[in-house]
Amino acid sequence: MTIRVFASGPLSAEQELTLEPEESHYAVRVRRAKAGDRLEVLDGHREAFIGTVLEASAREAKIRLEASVLPPAIPFLEIAVAKPDAKAAIEVLARACEGGAGRLTWITSTRSQPHGPALPRIERVLRAAMRQCGRPTLLEVGPATSLSEWLVASHEPAWIAAPSRPSRGSAPGFVEGVGPKLGTAGRVLVGPEGGFTDEEVDAAVAAGFWPLCLGPWILRTEVAVTAALGRLLGL
Amino acid sequence: MTIRVFASGPLSAEQELTLEPEESHYAVRVRRAKAGDRLEVLDGHREAFIGTVLEASAREAKIRLEASVLPPAIPFLEIAVAKPDAKAAIEVLARACEGGAGRLTWITSTRSQPHGPALPRIERVLRAAMRQCGRPTLLEVGPATSLSEWLVASHEPAWIAAPSRPSRGSAPGFVEGVGPKLGTAGRVLVGPEGGFTDEEVDAAVAAGFWPLCLGPWILRTEVAVTAALGRLLGL
Repeated sequence: MTIRVFASGPLSAEQELTLEPEESHYAVRVRRAKAGDRLEVLDGHREAFIGTVLEASAREAKIRLEASVLPPAIPFLEIAVAKPDAKAAIEVLARACEGGAGRLTWITSTRSQPHGPALPRIERVLRAAMRQCGRPTLLEVGPATSLSEWLVASHEPAWIAAPSRPSRGSAPGFVEGVGPKLGTAGRVLVGPEGGFTDEEVDAAVAAGFWPLCLGPWILRTEVAVTAALGRLLGL
Repeated sequence: MTIRVFASGPLSAEQELTLEPEESHYAVRVRRAKAGDRLEVLDGHREAFIGTVLEASAREAKIRLEASVLPPAIPFLEIAVAKPDAKAAIEVLARACEGGAGRLTWITSTRSQPHGPALPRIERVLRAAMRQCGRPTLLEVGPATSLSEWLVASHEPAWIAAPSRPSRGSAPGFVEGVGPKLGTAGRVLVGPEGGFTDEEVDAAVAAGFWPLCLGPWILRTEVAVTAALGRLLGL
């Protein structure tokens, strides 16, 4: 498995750099990198480079950067998630990052939770997710927004994750049909534990959101995030 | 949120029954069900019924069953997952159940792990997943099978989960094209941590498997399971 480390940017090809102690420790002690090994170096915001280890000690690993890793061109998908409890919110952050969302926005709704994880925790989780999945670009995390504010119409295709169970097949206002295709940008809304209220679903449908069915059974919020991103960003 | 309890079958409409102590405790103490409340009663294998609480005590809750819950008609999808470590395997079981797979088969491959969770643990995890997601039918868990045995051609459409990163875009043997549609049955293969070897991917492609891209970045096995099921079973 690819070893990925972080280094403060700006980074450029041919650059030689010494990793910070925490990253040296990770590369050398945890992942057992040695001189000559190849790894990926992420600046944590935008870019990744292939690098080669020049010298490896647990305190100071020296790296030479080579070619930059070209990220795939994917649509910019904003995922809005009704704020769950802090534990689930941590999972949602990691899944949204790995799943390829461009931005995550927390939504306040009837059944959302009031408190979320603190900023340092969010940063740690996103870093771990980027290290795991190889994504060089930081997931944007927008400020919490009320559902009604967030639903304001845009010209981008938009979906609301919905269970396809027969008991919900007749959810008020849902239009039959294939729905839009995701172009260069889109938005997807994922409900809280217990779901959106019928009124909230109605408001999303009235704002032009299409139902996105994620399988036959009810998914927890963090699982629905992965399923929704897999549906929309899978090629 | 719907309260779901288990009761030994066979169950039938109009039946009155007393829940076992563990299930009574869950309904009354954990979920605070009281006389008159509605809940779902699962037999743990096949069926679910809507029921009404007649009497609620933490030792003995009495329920009257009403209509059976008609499960949605969905394709029978077998998901084969290269055996991960026991912790990830637990996650895979829950995600495969919630995601709507019909059968889960563990695959031994070059990078799979040798040991999995014990049977009682598997049963507990599947029960918890069914309680969470409302699925009445038990996920079949097949015996571990070698990749080459499992790849034996069948007439069902078959996919292999694959990252769509450019570095893998040229994976040997991958055919360009749209791929098959899932009809009444299908099979999908998910790799281990570190992925299948090129030879293993070649063997799957030679056996008629189509690549199923799950987004731009590398997903852990248990996350890939949700993304794959969301892609294939989402409506």
